[in-house]
Amino acid sequence: MPRILTGITPSGTLHIGNYFGAMRPAIELQAGGDAYYFIADYHSMTALTDAKERRAFTQGIALDWLACGLDPAKAVFWRQSDIPEVCELMWLIGSLTPMGLLERAHSYKDKTAKGIEANFGLFAYPVLMAADILLFDTNVVPVGKDQKQHLEMTRDIAIKFNHTYGETFVVPEERISETLAVIPGLDGQKMSKSYGNTIEIFGDEKALRKKIMGIVMDSRTPQEPKPDADKNLAVQLLKLFAPADVAADFENRLRAGGLGYGDLKKALFEHYWNFFAPYRAKRAELAANLDYVDKVLREGADRARAVAAKTMARARQNCGLR
Amino acid sequence: MPRILTGITPSGTLHIGNYFGAMRPAIELQAGGDAYYFIADYHSMTALTDAKERRAFTQGIALDWLACGLDPAKAVFWRQSDIPEVCELMWLIGSLTPMGLLERAHSYKDKTAKGIEANFGLFAYPVLMAADILLFDTNVVPVGKDQKQHLEMTRDIAIKFNHTYGETFVVPEERISETLAVIPGLDGQKMSKSYGNTIEIFGDEKALRKKIMGIVMDSRTPQEPKPDADKNLAVQLLKLFAPADVAADFENRLRAGGLGYGDLKKALFEHYWNFFAPYRAKRAELAANLDYVDKVLREGADRARAVAAKTMARARQNCGLR
Repeated sequence: MPRILTGITPSGTLHIGNYFGAMRPAIELQAGGDAYYFIADYHSMTALTDAKERRAFTQGIALDWLACGLDPAKAVFWRQSDIPEVCELMWLIGSLTPMGLLERAHSYKDKTAKGIEANFGLFAYPVLMAADILLFDTNVVPVGKDQKQHLEMTRDIAIKFNHTYGETFVVPEERISETLAVIPGLDGQKMSKSYGNTIEIFGDEKALRKKIMGIVMDSRTPQEPKPDADKNLAVQLLKLFAPADVAADFENRLRAGGLGYGDLKKALFEHYWNFFAPYRAKRAELAANLDYVDKVLREGADRARAVAAKTMARARQNCGLR
Repeated sequence: MPRILTGITPSGTLHIGNYFGAMRPAIELQAGGDAYYFIADYHSMTALTDAKERRAFTQGIALDWLACGLDPAKAVFWRQSDIPEVCELMWLIGSLTPMGLLERAHSYKDKTAKGIEANFGLFAYPVLMAADILLFDTNVVPVGKDQKQHLEMTRDIAIKFNHTYGETFVVPEERISETLAVIPGLDGQKMSKSYGNTIEIFGDEKALRKKIMGIVMDSRTPQEPKPDADKNLAVQLLKLFAPADVAADFENRLRAGGLGYGDLKKALFEHYWNFFAPYRAKRAELAANLDYVDKVLREGADRARAVAAKTMARARQNCGLR
């Protein structure tokens, strides 16, 4: 069974764009493989320098993913910094990584072009990512197109290390997610924290209802037929949460005329709210039992470390350390 | 008592230029401070990709330094890779290190200008060096002028981390060795492995005698007076090994005329050979007792790790990991 690795950066509250675009597809993998998930708290350091937020976000990610279906009986789930060997491996492979390879990284160039302060961590990110992947003998890494280059770099690094020091690493394969769902935000643009147009997965009911009821529609009267009903943002969002026939019924009523936008948004809110109800309950249960969550992460780290220890012993032996 | 840290890169057989220029001054520090010495096998990876050589050089360094007077009862002496926490600390501080700081590093620019293949390890070297220093609450780092910039970078990094995450690191002071002895090699140039003009500290008697007897002199006859006797390479080297009056006597006889170059070189060899005789005996004893050497390094690592563990706990806590 191929080992599939997914890293999750703790960067704040998750929204439904994250859920449908990344989280649900990732969680579904646990059914079909040897799934490894880690909360990338080391990676978060290149962008986030608030210790309290890092701790809160890391715990939040654990709660969110466990609530949304990550099953620690099926998958291995841990905090990256519980296995600091990944930093040692970063040095081992980094000493063989040509600077040219890193200087060509699109992600670094894009971020610095956007004016993000270039720090060493940002530059070194692909080396740590390669260490994340190689440390656990990963076979497959599902990546979006934006991460495709990083995975190619990981393969290059693994091949060069194996060639220089002898067979050490499993060379991973990529699995490009071509069809990543793009979820529209409250303003119709792609949902993204940086656009301020998000609907959170978890949060305060009143505030979230207000957000959804505040979606701006056009000024047509409820009675007017709306031939473009399928383009309506609330209809599009409703399709994510309501059964297909229910969503189709709302769309048809909007098209025919007679359904007011207020009623449509109210229905959207209800379906959205009910969709996440079991996850919300599960999350509340977990949040009341943080010892259990810690235990899950600790046990996950123990399982992951058993693999990491073997890889590190091999790597150290092959390159003449200790 | 200030803690003084010295890193030793395992890059091959040591010569008398290393001994007088770096080793002896470093070993003398153990009398006057809390001296920490480590064999920098992680650092060696940026230039050396032969696992067997790294292992042999690392062991060789341990034998050489213990033979030449490093006293594990006075100083802490360990193998860098026995404390992998240094790599984790490298990531923690690296995520705050501006790229501009590293891009300005003379050492990296010089090496790549000389055509050395630029790898990530070479570029990242100052960050690992900063981690080496900060991990052990180092107060003082004796550096040559070529390392002055790296120590300034370490200070900058420590200050920035303390400012961002709260007091975590001791900010080290530099101690510039202005008077580092430059030892001439067999050809009169500075002794350096890259010039192929070295006299090893330890090695085969016959081969070393041949090296010294092979020093090229001018064609003046033994009888001719030599007013430039103080410039004579063999006289200069003899001053390192012979008592001052003995060396002065040889110099005077050369100046006056009547001393042949062959006899001078023979005397040089004898004094050189006798100078290192006790170290040679000690080294042979250690080489026959490698378990003891391993034990010294292991115990050194245990002592160093006790300091490192506290620093890492502080650093992790302050930046919100675990």
